[in-house]
This record gives sequence, structure tokens and C-alpha cells, in this order.
Amino acid sequence: MAEPPEVVKRECVFRGKKVVLEVQTVRAAGRTSRREVVLHPGAVAILAFPEPDKVLMERIWRYALEREMLEIPAGTLEPGEAPEACAARELEEETGYRAGRLERLLAIHPSPGILSERLEVFLAHDLKAGKPRPEAGEQIEAVLVPIDEALAMIQDGRVTDSKTVAALLFWERFMSESA
Amino acid sequence: MAEPPEVVKRECVFRGKKVVLEVQTVRAAGRTSRREVVLHPGAVAILAFPEPDKVLMERIWRYALEREMLEIPAGTLEPGEAPEACAARELEEETGYRAGRLERLLAIHPSPGILSERLEVFLAHDLKAGKPRPEAGEQIEAVLVPIDEALAMIQDGRVTDSKTVAALLFWERFMSESA
Repeated sequence: MAEPPEVVKRECVFRGKKVVLEVQTVRAAGRTSRREVVLHPGAVAILAFPEPDKVLMERIWRYALEREMLEIPAGTLEPGEAPEACAARELEEETGYRAGRLERLLAIHPSPGILSERLEVFLAHDLKAGKPRPEAGEQIEAVLVPIDEALAMIQDGRVTDSKTVAALLFWERFMSESA
Repeated sequence: MAEPPEVVKRECVFRGKKVVLEVQTVRAAGRTSRREVVLHPGAVAILAFPEPDKVLMERIWRYALEREMLEIPAGTLEPGEAPEACAARELEEETGYRAGRLERLLAIHPSPGILSERLEVFLAHDLKAGKPRPEAGEQIEAVLVPIDEALAMIQDGRVTDSKTVAALLFWERFMSESA
């Protein structure tokens, strides 16, 4: 690539609880244009297999899509929180499971054209079941899904969450016994 | 899941060129809370193999991340545009390649916790090379990457774009000759 584009001006147009919306005036290849950027604190997801050949997933209501989704457990980083600590916290809050050890699996940028979010996926080891402690107003139902069924749901489009698709296919391709 | 949550009030706090930011007051499990939702028109991506065992990718500057990324070609839907038409247009504009046929491969929701975006991935067939016609100020460099190298870059974290990770692993798992 030639010269990297330059941000000439940043205008914060909305500062929310979770995201900040910035309008940037940028200069690239001699032209000035405006870009909308959604600044996000970052997130984590957890791939966990509490029983042989079963993956821990959640039925969760997604306001942005106005529907329920089937996803692996995940959450947004609190200010100053380390990804691994966030993963341990979210896993326990949402599903009740405690991980003896969390292994970094991969990181993804969910939507780099508009969103600064970076999401780190951890593989959970040495799981112990417990009681979930959902946040007020959160409706999350933890479910154990046979791996073959989760893969079939990716193939036929019933599972479409990008972190879930990426994490499960990544794990199967690069990490599982059969890989 | 019990009763689906209900959106009590929608407040548009920013209407941009590409996204709309809405603050929703929602009622779930008897509690009222506020949610930030980024409304996005939807997007497409294209998985193309112009040469045997080589995948078409792009080096593209991402303002949201302030860095260059290596991704498969993609673009945002224009108002009223069909995903397949958008895929054909973006592929040709950004890389110069024309597809004789586009096959729907999978759809993903890149970041369902905050973003309404749905992204559809097409597999391009019968490719013909041509001249790219980039939009003003866009810096995109098309590159042909051996599939094995692209997979190695997913494994070691040099490729982190969620649509690229999901599309390549999906294709290899469910669509390629060796699957």
C-alpha cells in the first residue's frame, strides 16, 4: 500500500454506555472524505465442552436483530478488564460454569469496515458446573449442543453468529483430535 | 425462552451515511433498561479463486482499526440493492474480476450484540480478469493468496477479519473437493 490514510479530524457524535460514534474526516490518495466509525471496548467469547462431544451454547435475545440467536457465551470488556478475566466472569455469570484454565484460541475483528471491536476467543479447560448469575433483564438460556449438530447448524444457516462460526470451525480445523 | 423482550421506545441519536445509532428502551423479564443498537444496511463478501488453489484477497485500510487488513472482497448494500447484485458490483469495482455466476455460500451476523448487520457470502464462478474501478479515496490492493497460506494466516492470527475467517473455513469444511 502507498501512504496510509490520515485522519484529519475526529468528531464524537454520540458517547453511549457501550459504544462511541465518531465521524472522521480522512485524507487518502489526495482526497478528503468522511467516515463513520463505531468505537467498541472489545469483547471475548468462550468455547467450552462440558461433556464429551458437546459444546456449550446460549439462546440469547439480540436487540440489534430483534430475534433470538444461538451463540457461544460471550461478553464485552469492562473498562480496564483483561480479556481472560472477562471470559472467566462472563462464562460463570451466563452459564454457571467455572473454567480451571482458559487458553487463547483466536482473535477476530467482527466488522472492520465500521466497528473497532476486537473479540478474543478462549478455549475453556477443567470445567465445573454451577449456578448462573444473569444480569438484571438478561434472558440467557445455556444449552449443550452435540458438536456434529452445531456444525450442521452452521452448514444450513441456523447458526450465523460470526464468533460462533469462526470459533467452532477454527477449533475443529486446527485444534480438535481429528484435525 | 420465556416472553421475548419488548422495545418500549426507540430514539434515533445519530443518522449517518452508513449507520444509524438508536437507543432503545426495552422491557425484559419485568425490568426496563436501555440498549444501544447500531443499525446497518447489510453487506456482502465474495470468495473467489481466480487461479487453482489461490484465493482472491485485498489489502485494505480500515479506519475503524487504523490499520491495514487482509480480507476477502466485500461491500455494503446500497439502498434497495439485492445482495447478489452488490457482490457482482463490489467484486468488479475493487478487484476488476467479473463473475459469470455467484453462488450463495453462507450468511453471518458479524456482531449481534450491538450491530444489526447481516453479511452474505457468495462463491464466485467463471471469473474473468479486468480493470478495477476503485471509488475515490479508496485504497485497495487485490492479491492472490495460496489457500494453504491463507489458512496458515488464519491459524497464526495474521488474518482476523471475521467474514474472511468464517468464509474460508466454511468453504474448506463444507464445499471444497477435499471436504
